[in-house]
Amino acid sequence: MITARITVTLKNGVLDPQGKAIEGGLSALGFSGIGSVRQGKIFDVELDAKDDNTALGELNAMCAKLLANTVIEDYHVEIL
Amino acid sequence: MITARITVTLKNGVLDPQGKAIEGGLSALGFSGIGSVRQGKIFDVELDAKDDNTALGELNAMCAKLLANTVIEDYHVEIL
Repeated sequence: MITARITVTLKNGVLDPQGKAIEGGLSALGFSGIGSVRQGKIFDVELDAKDDNTALGELNAMCAKLLANTVIEDYHVEIL
Repeated sequence: MITARITVTLKNGVLDPQGKAIEGGLSALGFSGIGSVRQGKIFDVELDAKDDNTALGELNAMCAKLLANTVIEDYHVEIL
C-alpha cells in the first residue's frame, strides 16, 4: 500500500475569499502583523500500485479528473 | 515577512465523510486499488515576526484559537 499526499492550492492571482475571511478573523482575535492567508486542501490517499511511478501516474490522473480544478488550482503529489 | 504552512488533518478514528465521498467518486471514475482517502486543510500564512520562534508561537496560538478544532483535528506548523 502506497501512501501519498496531494496538495491543492489556488493559483497566484486567484481571489481567495475564505483566506480573506480567516485574515479578518485572526485580526479580530488580536493577531497582528498578518500579511496574507491563503487556504488550500490536502488529500491523503492510500492506494495499491506496483511501484511509485505507477502510483504517481494514477495520482496525477486523479488530480486532473477530480481532485483539482486546473483552471484555478495547482496541485502537487508527494509519495510519503 | 515569514511564510508558514499550517496543515490541519482529522485525527485518526474521526469519520471523514468528505474523504469517503471522494473515494466513491474516484472508484466511479474507474480508479481501482484505492485504500482510503482523507481530506485535510492547509493555510499558507505570511506574517511579520522578529524571528522564527516568535512566529511559531503565534502560529500555534492561531491554530489553537481559530484554525483547528483540536477535539477532532491535529495541526502541524512548518516555516517555509
